[in-house]
Formats: sequence, structure tokens, C-alpha cells
Amino acid sequence: MHTIEQLNDGRAVYLNGQRINVADVPIFRKTLALNNQYYALQRTHQDVHTYIEDGQRYDIAFKVPLTSADLKQKHRAYQEIAESNNGLLGRTPDFLNSAMAALAVRSHFLGHNEYTNFAANAKHYAEHVKTEDIFISHALQNPQLDRQKAINAIPSGYAGVHVTKRTMEGITVSGAKMVNTMAPIADDLLIFNPPELLLEKGDTSYAVAFATPLNTPGVKIICRKLLDHPVYTGYTEDDFPLSNALDEIDAYIVFDEAFIPWERVFVDNDVEMSNRFFMDSGMFIHSSHQDEVRGITKLEFATTLAIRTAKLLGLDGFLGVQEKLGRLTANLELIKGTIARSEEEGRLDDFGIYTPNQQALQAVRSTLPEYYEEALKVAQHLAAGSMVGVPGFKEFNGDNGPILEQALGTSKATAKERAKFLNLVFDLTTAGFGQRQLMYEYYHGGDPMRIRSQHYAGEDLRAGNEMIDRIMKS
Amino acid sequence: MHTIEQLNDGRAVYLNGQRINVADVPIFRKTLALNNQYYALQRTHQDVHTYIEDGQRYDIAFKVPLTSADLKQKHRAYQEIAESNNGLLGRTPDFLNSAMAALAVRSHFLGHNEYTNFAANAKHYAEHVKTEDIFISHALQNPQLDRQKAINAIPSGYAGVHVTKRTMEGITVSGAKMVNTMAPIADDLLIFNPPELLLEKGDTSYAVAFATPLNTPGVKIICRKLLDHPVYTGYTEDDFPLSNALDEIDAYIVFDEAFIPWERVFVDNDVEMSNRFFMDSGMFIHSSHQDEVRGITKLEFATTLAIRTAKLLGLDGFLGVQEKLGRLTANLELIKGTIARSEEEGRLDDFGIYTPNQQALQAVRSTLPEYYEEALKVAQHLAAGSMVGVPGFKEFNGDNGPILEQALGTSKATAKERAKFLNLVFDLTTAGFGQRQLMYEYYHGGDPMRIRSQHYAGEDLRAGNEMIDRIMKS
Amino acid sequence: MHTIEQLNDGRAVYLNGQRINVADVPIFRKTLALNNQYYALQRTHQDVHTYIEDGQRYDIAFKVPLTSADLKQKHRAYQEIAESNNGLLGRTPDFLNSAMAALAVRSHFLGHNEYTNFAANAKHYAEHVKTEDIFISHALQNPQLDRQKAINAIPSGYAGVHVTKRTMEGITVSGAKMVNTMAPIADDLLIFNPPELLLEKGDTSYAVAFATPLNTPGVKIICRKLLDHPVYTGYTEDDFPLSNALDEIDAYIVFDEAFIPWERVFVDNDVEMSNRFFMDSGMFIHSSHQDEVRGITKLEFATTLAIRTAKLLGLDGFLGVQEKLGRLTANLELIKGTIARSEEEGRLDDFGIYTPNQQALQAVRSTLPEYYEEALKVAQHLAAGSMVGVPGFKEFNGDNGPILEQALGTSKATAKERAKFLNLVFDLTTAGFGQRQLMYEYYHGGDPMRIRSQHYAGEDLRAGNEMIDRIMKS
Amino acid sequence: MHTIEQLNDGRAVYLNGQRINVADVPIFRKTLALNNQYYALQRTHQDVHTYIEDGQRYDIAFKVPLTSADLKQKHRAYQEIAESNNGLLGRTPDFLNSAMAALAVRSHFLGHNEYTNFAANAKHYAEHVKTEDIFISHALQNPQLDRQKAINAIPSGYAGVHVTKRTMEGITVSGAKMVNTMAPIADDLLIFNPPELLLEKGDTSYAVAFATPLNTPGVKIICRKLLDHPVYTGYTEDDFPLSNALDEIDAYIVFDEAFIPWERVFVDNDVEMSNRFFMDSGMFIHSSHQDEVRGITKLEFATTLAIRTAKLLGLDGFLGVQEKLGRLTANLELIKGTIARSEEEGRLDDFGIYTPNQQALQAVRSTLPEYYEEALKVAQHLAAGSMVGVPGFKEFNGDNGPILEQALGTSKATAKERAKFLNLVFDLTTAGFGQRQLMYEYYHGGDPMRIRSQHYAGEDLRAGNEMIDRIMKS
Repeated sequence: MHTIEQLNDGRAVYLNGQRINVADVPIFRKTLALNNQYYALQRTHQDVHTYIEDGQRYDIAFKVPLTSADLKQKHRAYQEIAESNNGLLGRTPDFLNSAMAALAVRSHFLGHNEYTNFAANAKHYAEHVKTEDIFISHALQNPQLDRQKAINAIPSGYAGVHVTKRTMEGITVSGAKMVNTMAPIADDLLIFNPPELLLEKGDTSYAVAFATPLNTPGVKIICRKLLDHPVYTGYTEDDFPLSNALDEIDAYIVFDEAFIPWERVFVDNDVEMSNRFFMDSGMFIHSSHQDEVRGITKLEFATTLAIRTAKLLGLDGFLGVQEKLGRLTANLELIKGTIARSEEEGRLDDFGIYTPNQQALQAVRSTLPEYYEEALKVAQHLAAGSMVGVPGFKEFNGDNGPILEQALGTSKATAKERAKFLNLVFDLTTAGFGQRQLMYEYYHGGDPMRIRSQHYAGEDLRAGNEMIDRIMKS
Repeated sequence: MHTIEQLNDGRAVYLNGQRINVADVPIFRKTLALNNQYYALQRTHQDVHTYIEDGQRYDIAFKVPLTSADLKQKHRAYQEIAESNNGLLGRTPDFLNSAMAALAVRSHFLGHNEYTNFAANAKHYAEHVKTEDIFISHALQNPQLDRQKAINAIPSGYAGVHVTKRTMEGITVSGAKMVNTMAPIADDLLIFNPPELLLEKGDTSYAVAFATPLNTPGVKIICRKLLDHPVYTGYTEDDFPLSNALDEIDAYIVFDEAFIPWERVFVDNDVEMSNRFFMDSGMFIHSSHQDEVRGITKLEFATTLAIRTAKLLGLDGFLGVQEKLGRLTANLELIKGTIARSEEEGRLDDFGIYTPNQQALQAVRSTLPEYYEEALKVAQHLAAGSMVGVPGFKEFNGDNGPILEQALGTSKATAKERAKFLNLVFDLTTAGFGQRQLMYEYYHGGDPMRIRSQHYAGEDLRAGNEMIDRIMKS
Repeated sequence: MHTIEQLNDGRAVYLNGQRINVADVPIFRKTLALNNQYYALQRTHQDVHTYIEDGQRYDIAFKVPLTSADLKQKHRAYQEIAESNNGLLGRTPDFLNSAMAALAVRSHFLGHNEYTNFAANAKHYAEHVKTEDIFISHALQNPQLDRQKAINAIPSGYAGVHVTKRTMEGITVSGAKMVNTMAPIADDLLIFNPPELLLEKGDTSYAVAFATPLNTPGVKIICRKLLDHPVYTGYTEDDFPLSNALDEIDAYIVFDEAFIPWERVFVDNDVEMSNRFFMDSGMFIHSSHQDEVRGITKLEFATTLAIRTAKLLGLDGFLGVQEKLGRLTANLELIKGTIARSEEEGRLDDFGIYTPNQQALQAVRSTLPEYYEEALKVAQHLAAGSMVGVPGFKEFNGDNGPILEQALGTSKATAKERAKFLNLVFDLTTAGFGQRQLMYEYYHGGDPMRIRSQHYAGEDLRAGNEMIDRIMKS
Repeated sequence: MHTIEQLNDGRAVYLNGQRINVADVPIFRKTLALNNQYYALQRTHQDVHTYIEDGQRYDIAFKVPLTSADLKQKHRAYQEIAESNNGLLGRTPDFLNSAMAALAVRSHFLGHNEYTNFAANAKHYAEHVKTEDIFISHALQNPQLDRQKAINAIPSGYAGVHVTKRTMEGITVSGAKMVNTMAPIADDLLIFNPPELLLEKGDTSYAVAFATPLNTPGVKIICRKLLDHPVYTGYTEDDFPLSNALDEIDAYIVFDEAFIPWERVFVDNDVEMSNRFFMDSGMFIHSSHQDEVRGITKLEFATTLAIRTAKLLGLDGFLGVQEKLGRLTANLELIKGTIARSEEEGRLDDFGIYTPNQQALQAVRSTLPEYYEEALKVAQHLAAGSMVGVPGFKEFNGDNGPILEQALGTSKATAKERAKFLNLVFDLTTAGFGQRQLMYEYYHGGDPMRIRSQHYAGEDLRAGNEMIDRIMKS
């Protein structure tokens, strides 16, 4: 856990062409404070958020789950963290910490090369993260330059991160990763390749996985345009209750001959191992569990918002509106039930880790974004004209304040409450902030289309096949 | 459990203008045999399908659930019964038997009138059904003549079932009910009004609930057109693997001055009690559990059929097809998870019955029909041209047999296997049989639109509301 | 124009394993009568349906369109023919006759080989069809055995039609075509390959196009299972107003060493020419025009049916129902408008034929099936329970007749009218007949997915591109 | 046509609590310049944009259409104006000017009261607008405070605009209108009530229609929050190519005892006339024509953007992507065709005005927003991760410029071109600007649900009904 000032540690963060101090950017400050709820809850809800191992107390995310009950306890903790940010911070520390728990146990397959033992490096790193409870951020997606070409066939050298030098001490890397979240306020950066778009044979120099502090020389964090409305715009959190309160940030990460010592390297020069890293380490499935639990909270937030919009505007008496709202709550039930099933129908893996049911989790992962979008759409259409026209909140303090207070107050809300609520709906459904959150929800866990294309192959359809076989044989 | 001949007991069953003997209709004979799997499984899987109470062994459906584990045991039994008919018989005995379990415990609210004690009647009837293990069929929907008028405002007297005479011995009823399933082969008929389209004040004579044997004088069972292809058409179960194997039947039930003794009357002359009957007796929620468990099996059947269609026709290598199939298996996971949740997050009602979570069950009830339709659509479109052109199966025995065997065989299936499989797909997705099954799935449990319009009001959204309140107050 | 008896001309038609006389099959008799409206209208609406060329009067479908007005006149004629069968006969003679008009003018590209002049053959054949006004049926789809293999890689020899011998007199062909419509009652059969799934280099023996009378020795017409309910079932056209009135039939066509003289061969042994045949001859675009004009009628039929269902059942006062009906009429407007545009914004091709706008026509072709399905769905869901339970019509003449007349009559319709109307809705939306019509609509003109995948490339987006370029340059 | 400085005419425009000069707000300045293309095109494309009447030259929008050709000429002019702003300015002067043409001819029905002749006032006003070619803006929607109550039942007096005093000179009005566009830069404001949510009997004081200059004392224009990113944010039009280029503005209009002389009053104290005003004046249908023609341009802009996104990112080789793009171009064809039909199948109204076909126009109006949304969604999902992460454009001029130029350039575009294009996609699909444009498209012409609920009743379904009647009678 850091104060924002501690993040002025030499890291190279860029914003619209300027290298900046993280502490100088208000939205980074606020986001860090929100993210730190992860640490705060360890103190205030110790029973839920921590556990003891060998006499030491750790965050519950690091616990290696051995039973369904363990997963359910972790669920509770993840949920409380998510509720502190309305499910809108997708990458709080518990996300990758849950992955570290698996990596520590399963790292053996990573093997070694002539310079170092990758398996041991990974295990030690996972333990380091746990002991220090540091905040790691990861970047896996390679920049999408031409999806019809192999990475190594793109000449710029920026279609991924690749090794340019290899010495006794470590590797030197250059290149880029697309869309990292939270890097400006994290401690370490974890780099690997996605399991979805597999590297090809010729991509060996890109076949690398490692971790490194964010202030490593040669690492550049180039942020996208911010989506908040800072003080000088005249707008406050009353105007933009979400976009002025937090930003996950999406940074383009550049490596410019950055040196990584062997002890932080987990894969090198090995396409097969690079392609296996995320799945076979157990990092994927265990972090997915955290991720989808968080997703419930975001979905519940949007669902409730839609229902309250209908009530505020007196639209909840219409049968057609009720039906739409009932769809949303039914969707929420389907998600909650399926995550519960992933916890109850898990399995012990070869290392004795109780692992959530992947078919259930992936069903959620591919479906939740559509349900979330449906909730946004309902709220957006209910609020449409009312929401779009809300004036700046300072108007209530100006000449027109008394008029607006009288004109826009109803039996359900004062004019200011109505305005702030509609601003909240705007921010989540219509503002760039909210639509980026929607895109994030769709793609942060891989393309839903590809998840589906693999899902049917893994489904247990014995009962269905037996019924069909019986008919075929009759 | 009956043989088909025992059903020639004087009951008035009509088919296309003829009064018929049930035993003479081949599809009734086959459907009864399928339905009787309910009884057979009590013998062959005694541990799953029966339980002992006061030294007597009963079907598990009659067990009053006291714990989540009880619901899960009943789930297993319901599922095995459903699998014996591919989920295509919606009203096997376990459906209403699960309702009888609740009614026996909760009948007190029904009270009494000057002639009889309705509460005691209901309790005794439920016990009678259990002890004798008879097969009851129910009819609740009133004929849809003009949805914008009250029932008593429709002059014909056939917009529902109403009392025409009331004596010391019992009531005499006339009128009609729309869409009863299975009546020709059941023992008793249970009549009450739906909770969805409430009776209005003036409808008192229609405010009635009772049970009666199907051979009661004055009861007419007017079947819809059958959807099978009997022997004289030249087609067999190879041609129509489903529609030639079973028919739930949809009968229009007419009462023509039928006498019902008081001991079988549960509501009379009481609009409020008629409107409460299905819900407050617990019959609705407990039969819903059976119903949705059966629904899983039907959904799994259709889902598997779609996947096998893709494989048979060599279409499963296309990414777009894979995505569609993955949607189906994700849907199946969502349904399975949510039913599990309804069992695990139930509650003890005021009478100590462990009651499934209604929000979860209703989420399934409103969503499953759409998922089922999606599975049918995928299979239908994959099979389209191949399925539509399949010749009669006797063609394989005619002059063209050798040609067809050679022409239509593939590495995946012989020509006959291919033809029979495509016939199965046709029957479930495209034939009148299959489309009626689809409509059944949508409406047998009430209009999904109305289920949704009530769902959002019952949802526990405390976490969502707290998040919004926190923002509104900040 | 034929009487049904004339069709007993030696053609080999098979039904469920029996070789039959066409005249003995009631549904073939009725379908032929409907199809013959094409000929009847030439007499009764001579001004609309015929034109004079070189002093001879021909059906208007054969007219080579030179102007937009020509297309509009043909539109009127196609529409009247379609209205005579509710748009449910997709392959009345005007369909391919419109194609013959183009072929006669554009056949030159077909060239010749050492035995014959393909171009001349095609031109003469088109003139022969026009002069004799014979009814031709076509088969292009190859049996879908394994979509991931080339046709010649499927060993059975039935993955298409291929040449087995080539002499001075002509070719001998064997193999099969999937899903031909109307063959049992047509005069000639036209065989070619689809432009959609192109033949590959090795498929030369399959690269063939020709015409032949249906009673050619070696040609077998193996019909799929019929979908009607003949007299012996006890059901009439009151019970099944559509499926007992017509059947387009889908036949599997087998060639068993059938001899085709050179004068009827248009392509032989030429993969490129086979792949070009349908498009470059103009047959595709001109028959598409007829086809989509017919589609309007079918869509209007289904749309009107949905609206009348709502009115009959008193459901048209609900806002939600009104919205659904309004979607259907809006869809109908969109289709009508776009076909009009295809006629008004056509172009003169290199041969001076006024050719409908292909982008507009293909927009309709890919969209109309979804609109048609939407209309079916609305009608099906509105009628659901009411429609499914309708008893056989003979019930009105039996003991229960008076009861049913009283019970089911409303202010909007007598009981019999209501029953017949609901039977009509069942037949179009729910019966195998109606669902097959739906599949036909989707696939008879090629897979909508493939149509779309080509559509965007052909669209004139100059205005859109100019706007974007202006922004990019600013 | 005005310069921005001329708009500093005393009008009371408020922005976030400050009364401002219009000329001081950069986005107003830019928007006015764009809007003035309407005037510029009269000079540069005189033949398309003007016509001569009684020796005077006027903008073509004012021409009373007498033939289909007139509508087509107006179409061309509307389209050129729309293309100058990518279809994103919904209320350029031609919109209401087309309505003035109808009003001038059809005003008679408005009648008179004891003080004034409403019919004459309307006619004179329409002529005044035409002669002076002033820019009028309108406000019809009443603030949505409680949709289940009548306007006069909402006590604040701000649920609409109502008359508070009536003298020989004119009326005094107070109250509010929701969501006016363009008021800050227009000349006059036209106030009336929507035809959709009819006033009720008790609403007489709200039953008013009038026009007034925007600098009328007592008129306040309270703007919503602006959505641009002005200079001090560091972002330019390269970063936000649309939201930094224009803003239609949505203002809340308050009347605080504003005086309107009788000569500008068109309806007063007359609920029936207020409810009829928009439709019976012909203003609705003629302005709809302009509006939907503009809609084509916006749809074509979004459609082309989606296609170019696929090409830029190398995604257009995937079949699934091609299918999505083909849907978009098919949609565009359907819209273009249907608008053409509205022009060709219009009718002469009782006053001899050639009036576009309303069924065709309303089909477009209810459908186009969904098609537009579909285009946005395709572009948004294709660009998703690439678009979200684009850094500020100044980054290209900073330390990282050379790296970014190399890293993000592809064979299809330089890094800067790629960034700017992705920014354009972000602005239209994801930014608050773009999503507000989407909501505008849905609701600016009335709720699509209500348009549909009326559409089916107006559809000419004679052909459909005749087919069904023929079957019913057979």
C-alpha cells in the first residue's frame, strides 16, 4: 500500500506528450485511494480479508484454495472490494494475487534454461508478492496492427515485447504492449503473452514472460487521454459522479532496451511455454474467479441503476418497462447462480488446488458483458431526454438556481438529487467513461467470440448424448 | 400405474368428432408407456426415487423437503424421469405430486364454508394421491376469448368453469378450460384458476377449485388434432423419431353439469381464495422446481442435438458455427447454475418446508424458453437443406435403396444413420410436434412477459442500492 | 400448361419407396392447379401478363427488360402470380422464365468445345422455353456431405452431378443434386452449379450445366416426405388450410447414367465456366427480381396474418402488441421500398438489358427472411395457446358441435371461423409445412451470411468516404 | 445568416451557472459556421439550393412541393447540407423551413379568437421566415417529471409552457420546455406541444403555440454541460475530431413571464388545436422528410466508418466481420429505398401539396435509429482495444513521438492517421458526444415505440387481407 507521493519513484509516465508526476494528477490520486480499499479492508474486516499461514497473516487472495468453502470465502472478500468501487475497478490487487496463489504451487512446468531456473523464479516471485503484498499490474495484449499477420512479420518491432540481448545477468527487452490498466499506480508490471492469439513458430524472440518494477529504466507508460473533468473545467463529482471519481487508465507500455534480471524472468525464447504460461500456471482460472465475482457487482450496480431510473421518472408503472427491468434481474440471477456453481462444482487439480469449474466461469465470462450492456441500454433509454439535458451543477448556485429547484423537483426527488442521479446514469451509460467501461467488460478477459468457440468442446453433455443415442438405436 | 386398457373406464375422450377408446390410439399407448417410467423408476432406482415415512415407502416427489439436500435428491429423481422422455413430457406424475407435498402441509388457509371444510379436503386429497400414487392432470388456463373483458362478462359461460348448482352433497359445474395436457391418460383432473390473470369481483361463480376422476359424468376431453403419423401413412419412428413416439396432447376440457362432491372441493364462491390457491398452497413453487429441472434436460437434449448436427455435416470447423454452439453450452451452464442456486439458497417457509429460491427459479422460467429456442434455431439452420429433403425411410428398402446408401453415407455416418438423425432434428426443430413443444415451453408456466414484470420487484438489490446511495450522498 | 394426367409421361417419381404416378397424389394435383395460375393469368389479365414480339404473344416474364418501366410491368405480373398462391410457391414458371430472357441475350460467353457450341445451345434453349412456354425446374445445390472437402474428394460420386462418358452425340451423367423444388410437376430440369460454393480445380467432371426433360431415362426424382394430411387422416383444408392445399416438394434428384444430347449442354468440363454460369448469364439477377417480388407477397401475407390474429383474440389494444405489429408493417415498407429502388436505379448492362440494382436486391434477399421470421414469431406467440388446442374440424359435426359453437364463438368470429383462422396461423407458423417454408425462404437464394459477406464490398459509399476523408484531412 | 457576434443580441444564455456571450464559446462559434453551410450552399450550388417564385429567389426548402420531382430536388439539397456536417446537425435551418412551406398553405384550420386571427398569424410568420431566411429553432417536448400524471397536475408550473396573462396586446407565458437544440445560435424560437403525448382537457393554459425571437425578455436558455474539450485541456480536433468540431446543444428553455404579441401566437387556450397543430399544419410530415434524408447521411457516415475500421485494422478478411459489414450496407440500402418510395408514392393533399408517403417515412423513422446503433456497435467492437488506448495527439510531438510513429504505423496508415481515425471512431461510437447523438437519433422524432404502435393501423394491407379472406372463404 502506497501513498500517491511514493509513486513518484522515477517511473516514466506520459500524458498527452508530457512526462508527469503521478501525484500531480487528481484522478490518479483518487483512483489510488479507491484501490487502497484492498489494503484497508484487511484491517477493518480482518476475518473476511485475511488468513494465517505459518503464523503469518496474509490477504485472503493469496490463499491457495483447497475446498469449495475456501473459494466462497475468497468470493466474499473479492465482493467487498468490488463493492467499494462499484465493480468499476477491474484490476484491484486481489485480481493478480489470486493468480499468484496458483503460480506459487504450479510453476514447476516452466523448467529452466542454461542461465536460470524459470520455475523457481516464478515461485519466488509469487511469494515475494504475497509477503510484501505489492500491487502488480499486467500487460498481455500485443498491439493490434494487422491481425492477419504473425507478430514477427510486422517489421517495426512493436507488435509485442521481444528480447534484444541475453547475458549472464538477464535479458534486455524492447517493444510494446497495448492496453495496460493501472500501471501508473501499481508497483510491478507483469508481462506475458495471451493464450488466445497464440504465438507462431517464428515468434521466439517474443516468447517471453517476466516481472519488473514500474520504475525500471527503459519502461515507458504512455497513458491514453483521460476521461475526467478536472477542476478547471468547472465541473465536479456532482456533474460526473463516476468519471470524476476514478479512472482505470489504459496505458500503452513501451520497452526501450529495458533490462530484466534472470530472477524475474519466467519464460524466455520458448514459444510453447509462452503460449502455455497463463493457462498452465493456473493464473488464468483463479484470476477469472476474482474477475467474474467483481463482474457481479458491476452488473448489480447497473441493474439497480436502471430500476431506480424507472422509479425516479415515474416509468415503472408501464408493463413494457417492467418487463425490461425483470429481464435485468433475471440476468443477474443467472450470473450469480452460475458463479456459485463454479465454486461448488470445482475440482482438485493435480497439485491439490481446488479449482473453480471452468465451464461455468467461461459461461459467465462470455455472457456477462451482454447482460451488462443490456442493463446500460435500459437505463440509457429510460433516462434519454431527461439525462441528456442536465445543466452544469453550478447552475443551482447561479441566478437560475431557485427556478431549477422548483421546476425540476418532483415527489420522488429534489431537483438536485434528480440532476445528480441523472448525471450518474449519464456517466455509466453514455459518457466516454461508461462506454469504455463497457468495452473493457467485453474484452478484458479475451474476445467473447473465441471464448464461445472453445466452450462447447469442453461441455459435459453425456446426458444429452445418451438420450440421442437411445433414440438413434431404437 | 395403469395399463392402457384400464383407461377405458368410461371417460369421454373425443378425437376429430369421434368418441374413442384411449387404448385404440397408438400414440396414447406409447405416451402412457413413457409416462409410466415414473412408476418403473421407483422399482429400478428405489434409492433415488423413493423414501420411507412412517414405515411406508412413497415416491420421492411426495416428500416434504426440509433441507437443501432434500431438494437435491428430488432434483436427481426428477432428472432421471425427464431423461427417460428427453424432457419432452412436461407433466409426468412427479410434477403435481411435488405440489401435493406442499398442499398437504399448507392447506389450512383454505378455510371452510357452511357445507364443508376446504382445508381438510385439500389435505386429505393430497394424502390420497400420495397413498394411491395416482396420476393427476390439471387445467387452469381459461379459454382466451377476449383478453380485454372479465370472465363473467363473456356471455357463453365457457370462459372458465363455474358453479351452476350447490347442494348439501356438492357442487355442479359447467364451462371449459383451455389446453390441458395428458388428461386422456391420467386418473384425476385438478381444476383451479391461474394466479396470473386474476379473477375479478364479479367472477365469484368461477372462483372454484376441485379434483375429480376423469370418468366423471359430464366431463368431456376434446383432444386437439394429433401430430403423429400412424401406420397407415407409411411412416415409422425412423421417419418421425419424436412425433411418432409421444404426444402430451392438449385437450379442451368441457364440463357439462358435472357433479363434484364437497370432499373434493377446495375453493368455492370465493374470488380471493381462488386467486390465492396456486401460490399460497405452495403448489406453484414446488411444482416449478420439478418443472425447471425437467427443463434442463430438454435444453440439454436440444443443445446436444445442435452440436451433433454440426459434427455430422462437417460444419464444426467454422469459427462462426463454433461461436453459436458455444453460446448454447454457455446458456446451459447458466440454467444449471441458477437451478442449483434455487436449491442452495432456499428458505424454510412458515410451515418448515424448505422452499426453493423463487427469484432464481423464475429467472430460469422466463429465460429457459428463449435459450431452448436458440438451440432449436441453431440446429434448424445447420441442418436446413439437408434435413428438409430427407425421403421416407421406406426408400431405403425400395429400388433406390442401394443408391441412397452409397450416395448419402459419409465418413461420419451411414446413410440411414444420417437420415434418421436429420429426421430427429426435423421433428424437434421444424415439425409441428417440435414447434408445439416450443410454444409449450414458453407458456406452460405463465407468460414470460408477466413473470418478468414481477421479477424485478422481488429481487434483493441491497448491495446495488447501497452503492448508489453512497454515490448520491458523497 | 399441363393437366396432371399429362405428367404421367414416364418420369420416375418416388415417394417413400414407391414409384408413383404424379396424378395419383392429391397434393401434386392441387399444386399443379395453383402453379397453372401462371398460364391462366395470361388469358385473364392479358394486358399485364403478356407482350407481343415479332407479332407473337408471349408471357411477360420472357420479355427482355429495356427500361425501368419494363421491370415495373414484370413486377406487377409476378406479384399477381404470387398473390394467387400467397407467395408460397417459390418456383412458378415466371421465376426461371425471367432468367431465360437474360440467357438468350447473354449466352455468348459460354463459348464452345470440339463437339458443340454451348453459347448457341443456351440461346436456342431459352428460345425454346419461351416459344413453348414450358415449365422448367432447376437444381443447383450439391448434397452437403462434408462441407470441408472438395466435391471430387468425396468418393461416392454423389456429391454433385458429373460426366461419366462423352461421345459425339452428347454426355452421360451420374450423381445427385439436393433439394429440387417442383420437379414432379415440371417439364424440364435445368442443372448447373451454385455461384456460392465454387467448384475447385479438380472438380472438372462436375463442371457441367444442361437441361433435360424430366422423363429422361436415368433421372430419378426422390421426393421428401409429404407434409399434407390426406383424406384418410380425417383432416381437411379446414384443418390445414395451407399444408393441405399445396406443396412445393423438395426432391433429391439422382442421375444414373442419363444421356444428355449436346444441344442441351451449356457447360462441360470447365470449372471456370461452371462457376460463372449463373451470374454471368444474367440468370441470377433477373430471376432474383422475380423472386424478391414474390417475397413481398409472402411477407405481406404473414404480416397481415399477425395483425388479424391480434384483432381476433382481442390483443390489439395492448401497447406492447401494437409495437410488435408496427415493427412488422415497418419491415414491409422497407422491403417494398428497396425493391422499388432496385427497379428505379437499375442499369443497362453491356447487352442493353435493363438490369435491376443488385445491391438493393441483395439487401432484400439477405433481410427478408429475418423479417418473415419475425412476422411468423409474432403471430405464433399471439396465437400460442389458442392455436395449439384447436380440435379437428369434424368435431363441429359431432356430438360436441353445438357446445363448441357456443363456447368458442366471440363477437369477432364464429367458432368455426375462429378455428379455421387459428388453423391457418398454425399451418404457417408452427406446422412442419410453415417451418419448411421458413427454411426455404432463408436458403433458396443462397446463404444470407454469404450474401452479406459480399454485399459491403459492392456498396457505393462515395459520400461516406468523402465525409471521412474531409475529417482526416482537416 | 449571422456572424457569431451578431448573436450577442441580449439573449440570456447560461452555461454551468454563468450567463455567457455566445461568441465567447468556441464550440458555438464552430457550430454556427457549420450551420451556415445552409446559407453558403445557396450561393455555391444555386441550382440545387434555390428556386424562384414571383421573381424572387428563395432557399429550396421553402418551396411548396407539387410533384414527386419537387421532393427529389429538395432531397438533393437536404442531402448536401447534411453531408457538410456528416448528418450530425439535426436541426439546420432547412428542417423547419420545409415545415414553414406547408404551414403557409395549410394554416387555415387554426381559426381565430376574439383578439387575433391565428390562421393569418401563422401564414404571415411562415412568409416572414421565408423572406428573411431566418433560422428558427423549436421546442416541443415538455419536461418529463412524472409520466403518469397530466401536465396541469404537476404543481410547479414547469411541466410545460403556459399562459399566465392575456391582454389586447398578447399573452404572457411562463414555464419550461425540455431539450431544445441549437437555441443559442438560432434567431427565433418556435414553441408548441408534441402530437405524441396529447394534452388533456384540464391542460388549457398549456395549450399554446407561438414564435418569438430568442432575445425576448424572460426567455432563458440554460445549456446542458458541453461535451467538447477546449484549448485549455490540451486536446485538439485531432484528438476529438467530432466533439471538438460541433455541438447541437440541448438547452432547457425557461419562460419567466415572457410577453408574446398576438401576431406571433398560433394557438391559445385550445387543447384540441394544440394537439392538432404539428400534424394538421403539415409541418410534421414535411419536416420529417428533411429529417430522414439527413438521417441517411448520418447512417452512411457511420456505416462507412465501420467498414474503414475493419480495413485499417486488417479485420476485413474474416468471414464473420464481413457478414457484419454486409448487414450494415444492406440496412443502408433498405433506408435509401424506403425514402425514395416515400417520395415516389406520395399524394396530393387537399391543398395540392405533394406530400411524402407517411407510412414509408415512419418506417424509416422507427427503424433508422436501430440501424444507426448497429453501425456504431460494429465499429466500436472492431476498434475496441485499439481505440480505447490512443494517447493524446501531443504525444507525437513529445519525447515518444518517434517511437510512436514507428510503433503504430502500418502498411495501411501512418501512426498519426491511425490515431486520428481511431479518435474519430471513439468520438462517434464511445464518447459522450457520440452516445448523445445516438439518443438524439432515437428520440428527436418521437419515441420509436409509439411510432410503431400507430404504424400498423395505417398500413395498406389490402393484398394481404384478400389472400386471407380467400382462404377463409374456401
